Amino acid sequence: MSKERLYLFDTTLRDGQQTQGVQFSTPEKIQIAETLDALGVDHIEGGWPGANPTDSAFFDEAPKTRATMTAFGMTKRAGRSAENDDVLAAVLNAGTPSVCLVGKTHDFHVTKALGITLDENLENIARSFEHIVAQGREALFDAEHFFDGYKANPEYAVKCLKAAFDAGARWIVLCDTNGGTLPDEIGRITAAVIAQGIPGDRVGIHTHNDTGNAVAGSLAAIDAGARQVQGTLNGLGERCGNANLTTLIPTLLLKEPYASQFETGVTHKALAGLTRASRLLDDILNRVPTKSAPYVGASAFAHKAGLHASAILKDPSTYEHIEPSIVGNGRIIPMSNQAGQSNLRKRLAEAGLSVEKGNSALSQILDQIKEREAQGYSYDTAQASFELLARRALGLLPQFFEVKRYKVTVERRKNRYDKMISLSEAMVVVKIGDEKMLSVSESHDASGNDQGPVNALAKALAKDLGPYQPNIDDMKLVDFKVRITNGGTEAVTRVIIDSEDGKGQRWSTVGVSPNIVDASFEALLDAVTWKLVHDGAKP
Amino acid sequence: MSKERLYLFDTTLRDGQQTQGVQFSTPEKIQIAETLDALGVDHIEGGWPGANPTDSAFFDEAPKTRATMTAFGMTKRAGRSAENDDVLAAVLNAGTPSVCLVGKTHDFHVTKALGITLDENLENIARSFEHIVAQGREALFDAEHFFDGYKANPEYAVKCLKAAFDAGARWIVLCDTNGGTLPDEIGRITAAVIAQGIPGDRVGIHTHNDTGNAVAGSLAAIDAGARQVQGTLNGLGERCGNANLTTLIPTLLLKEPYASQFETGVTHKALAGLTRASRLLDDILNRVPTKSAPYVGASAFAHKAGLHASAILKDPSTYEHIEPSIVGNGRIIPMSNQAGQSNLRKRLAEAGLSVEKGNSALSQILDQIKEREAQGYSYDTAQASFELLARRALGLLPQFFEVKRYKVTVERRKNRYDKMISLSEAMVVVKIGDEKMLSVSESHDASGNDQGPVNALAKALAKDLGPYQPNIDDMKLVDFKVRITNGGTEAVTRVIIDSEDGKGQRWSTVGVSPNIVDASFEALLDAVTWKLVHDGAKP
Repeated sequence: MSKERLYLFDTTLRDGQQTQGVQFSTPEKIQIAETLDALGVDHIEGGWPGANPTDSAFFDEAPKTRATMTAFGMTKRAGRSAENDDVLAAVLNAGTPSVCLVGKTHDFHVTKALGITLDENLENIARSFEHIVAQGREALFDAEHFFDGYKANPEYAVKCLKAAFDAGARWIVLCDTNGGTLPDEIGRITAAVIAQGIPGDRVGIHTHNDTGNAVAGSLAAIDAGARQVQGTLNGLGERCGNANLTTLIPTLLLKEPYASQFETGVTHKALAGLTRASRLLDDILNRVPTKSAPYVGASAFAHKAGLHASAILKDPSTYEHIEPSIVGNGRIIPMSNQAGQSNLRKRLAEAGLSVEKGNSALSQILDQIKEREAQGYSYDTAQASFELLARRALGLLPQFFEVKRYKVTVERRKNRYDKMISLSEAMVVVKIGDEKMLSVSESHDASGNDQGPVNALAKALAKDLGPYQPNIDDMKLVDFKVRITNGGTEAVTRVIIDSEDGKGQRWSTVGVSPNIVDASFEALLDAVTWKLVHDGAKP
Repeated sequence: MSKERLYLFDTTLRDGQQTQGVQFSTPEKIQIAETLDALGVDHIEGGWPGANPTDSAFFDEAPKTRATMTAFGMTKRAGRSAENDDVLAAVLNAGTPSVCLVGKTHDFHVTKALGITLDENLENIARSFEHIVAQGREALFDAEHFFDGYKANPEYAVKCLKAAFDAGARWIVLCDTNGGTLPDEIGRITAAVIAQGIPGDRVGIHTHNDTGNAVAGSLAAIDAGARQVQGTLNGLGERCGNANLTTLIPTLLLKEPYASQFETGVTHKALAGLTRASRLLDDILNRVPTKSAPYVGASAFAHKAGLHASAILKDPSTYEHIEPSIVGNGRIIPMSNQAGQSNLRKRLAEAGLSVEKGNSALSQILDQIKEREAQGYSYDTAQASFELLARRALGLLPQFFEVKRYKVTVERRKNRYDKMISLSEAMVVVKIGDEKMLSVSESHDASGNDQGPVNALAKALAKDLGPYQPNIDDMKLVDFKVRITNGGTEAVTRVIIDSEDGKGQRWSTVGVSPNIVDASFEALLDAVTWKLVHDGAKP
C-alpha cells in the first residue's frame, strides 16, 4: 500500500524564539537549523527578516539545507501596494525559496487590532500572495486566530483562506493562535474547511499548548485531513509553547493509524537521533532538560514502582509503550525504597556488576539503601553513589585515599578600597598509602570573584591527589543541586553533584549532612572515587 | 438546565510519588492533602499502606478532609483468600472510607507478569471487591493496562471489569498504564465499555503522558461518557507523568462543552487558588516551576511578541484564551509599559505601601527588579525582600544596623575518640549607632550535632543585636531553599529563607551570590530587617 505524504514544518527559530527568556544568536540558529535538517523536517522557518538584526543575519548566513528554508512576515498593510510595502519587501529580500505570511481571519481582530475594514483585509491577503507567487516563491498563509475567527464568523474566516488560496498560496495553515481551542473542535473545524473546497493536502495545522492539548489538536487536524503539521523542538514558543515536534514526530512514525498511513521526511535512522536533538537544544539554551518529556525525557522510560520494575525485567513491553532506543533514549530502573531485589540486580548489571540471584550482598545493599534513604539520601539520580555503595558491599571498592581532615573559611569584609568582598579558602589533608598530602586553595573565578566554600574545597582536593592526578585533571563540576530534606527527625541538607570528564562521561553523586559544606564534600569525594574506579586506577 | 456531576480523583500522593526523584515525607503529604482538599477534589489517594513506612505513617496522621481519603493496594494474590491476604489486610487496616485496588485486565500480563490462569485472575478480582464491599467501604477498581488489554482480548478485558463491577465496585477506572494509547482510541474503547453494560457514571479514566496526550485522552473518555477523571497536581507521576489536574480542572470548569455540561467539587473561588497550589507543590519538592505550564505557568500569560503585546493593551482577549486571574495567575507584558506599573502598585498595596500613580519611584523600583532578576534574584515568593527593596526606593527603610564583617569556619576532623566530626563557627561584627558589637557562635543542635555554617551565622547574628534583641528573640528559620541559577553569564546560588516569629507571622527573603554562605547571609539579613520594620522598631 502506498503511503500518503505528511509534511513537517518547524518554527523553532521563529515562534520558538517567542519563548520567555529565549533569544538565539545567529550561530545558535545555524546550529539548530542543521540539527532540524538532519532530523528530516520539510520546512525550517528561520525568523522574520527585517524584524530584528539576528533574524536578518541568520538568513544572510543560513546553512544549505535539504529542508526548505522559509522566511516569516505578515501580509501587506492597507493603503499601499504589495510592491511598496517595506516590511514585506524585507521578507522577500531574504531570498528564501519559501515565504510564510501571517494574516487576520477573525473579524474582531481585523476591526479591533488592525482598525481596517473586512474587505481591506481580504484585499491585503490576496495582493500579498499574488506578489509572492509572481516572484516564483512557494507561499504559506498563517491564518491567525482561525479557529476563534471561524466560531465568530465562519463565512468571513473561510473567505480569508480562499483569498490566499485563490492567489496561489501552496499551504493554508490553520492557526489556533491563543491556544484555547480543544482538539475535538479543531478536528471539526478543519474538516469543515476541507469540505468547503480547500483540499486537505493544502491545509496545515499550527497549535499552541495553552490547554495542554497542542499535540492532540494537531493529531485531530491530521485525522480531519490536514497534511502539514507545524511545531517546534521541545515545544518552545510563546506562552505555553507550540505543538512539540519532539513528541509529534515519534507519534506519527510509530503509532497507528499514522505509522501505516503516512510517510514523512524523517527516517527511522534519524528518529534515533531525536533524544540527542532535544538535549542539544536545551544545551544551547542552557536549560535543564525536562525529565518527564514524552519519548526523549530522562524519566520517559524510568520505572520506579517496584511492581513495574520487576515486570520490566521479565518483558520490557509490560510497562513501556515503545522501545526506548528507537528514539535514542534509554531505560532507567532507579533505586528507591519501593524497589526489590530483581530491580537491584538489573541496576547493578547496568553498572557492570553481575551479581547472582540470592547473593546475600543483595539484601545487605537493599538494607543500606533503605537506611540511607531514611537519613535523606536519594539514589534515583545519584547513580554513581549507588554504584559505590554496592561496590563497597561487594568488596569491589579499593581504598584509593583517605581524607584525614579539612577546614574551610568564608570571610566577608571590606577590602582596601572600602568595598565589601568575600573570600573562601580551603585546606584538605589527604593520606595516600603512607603519604600525607596537604593542599590549600582559594576559590575564585578568572575575574577574581569568590565562588564559595564548595568550590574552594573542590579545588583544594583536586590540587594534589598524588598518583591519581592525571585521572582527575579533566574532571569538572557541571551541576550542583541542594535541597533541605528530612533525615530522621532533623532537617538535613542533600547535595547532588553532576561531574563530567574529558571523555564526555557524566555522573551524579550525593551527600547528606546537616552541614551543607559537609554534604557537598561527601558528594565531591564520591565523584572523585567513581572516576578513579572507572579509569581503572590502582591504589 | 441541571448539570451532571463529574468527579475528580487525585493521586498526587500515590502515583505522583512514582515520579523519579520524588519522595514525600509524612508532613509534606499532609500539607499536600490539605491543599487538594481546599481545591475541592473528590478523592485523595494517599498512598499504599504497608508498602512503605511513609505511606503507612500518613494514614495514621491523615488530616480530616472533606474529600474522600482513599488507600491504594492490589487485588488479592492467588492461592489465598481475600481475608488471609496480608497485603490486602494492610490496605484495609488504614481505615479509609474508600479503597482503590489495582488488578490485571490484560491477558498477557496475567499469564506473563503474574504467572496465573485467566480464571484465577477473575477470581482474585471478584473476591477482593466482595471483601472490601462487605466491610462497608467504597471500592474502586484500577483496571491496569485496560486499553492494551482490550485491544489484545476485548472479551477478557471486559470480563475483568465486570468481575469488579458485579462484586460491588463503585468505580471502574480504565487505566492507560503504559501511556501509549492515543485519545481517539481511548474515546472509542471507553464508549465500547459503556455500551457493554458498565454505566458511564461508574466509569473512571486514568491516563499517562507518554505521548503528550494525557489531558486529551481524559477529555476523550469524558466525551465518551466516563464520569470520574484521575490525575495529579502538576502532572507528577511515573515516567512522563499522569494527567495533569492543574490543566484539566480549569479546562473542565471554563471550556465548552464541559463548563455547561458538568458540575465538579471545585468552586470558581477555589479555582483562583490553582496557581498557588501548583507553586506550593513545587516549593515542597524544591523544583523549579515549569514556566510554560498551561494556565498556572509563569509564562502562560506572558506576551513577548511585539504585535501581541500592543494588541493586549487594547483588549486582553485578543491574545488570551482566558482571563489569567480566574486561575490565580497574572499577565506579564514587557516592563516598560503602563501595565507593569499598575501591577507593581497592586503588589505594593498588598504590602501595605500605597503609592500614587505616576510616582517616579515606581519606574525606579521596576528597573531595580529587572536588574536584580537578571542577576538571579526572584521576587515571586520572596515577598519580604521585595517589600524591603521597594521601601528602600521609597525612602521608607530606616538603617537599623550595619554588618561590618563576618567570618565562618567549617572544619572536619577526628575528635579525641578518633571519630570524624564536623564543627562550624561564625563571628559577626555589627555596628548599631556608634556601637560595634562582636558576636561569636558555634553551630550545633541540642545533642551536639553540627548544623553547618548558615546556622552558625544565624546564631551569631541573633546573639547580640543590642536594642533589637527582644524583636528577634522569637524569630526562627523554618525553611531554607537553595537553587543554582544564572546570574548574567555565571551560575550563582539563590537562597530563599522562610522565617517565622512567635505571633505566627511567616515571611520569605532571598539572597544571591556565587558563594552559598554569602547568599544565605544576605537572605538572613533581609529576614531580620523585615521583622524589625514590622515590629515598628526604632533605629
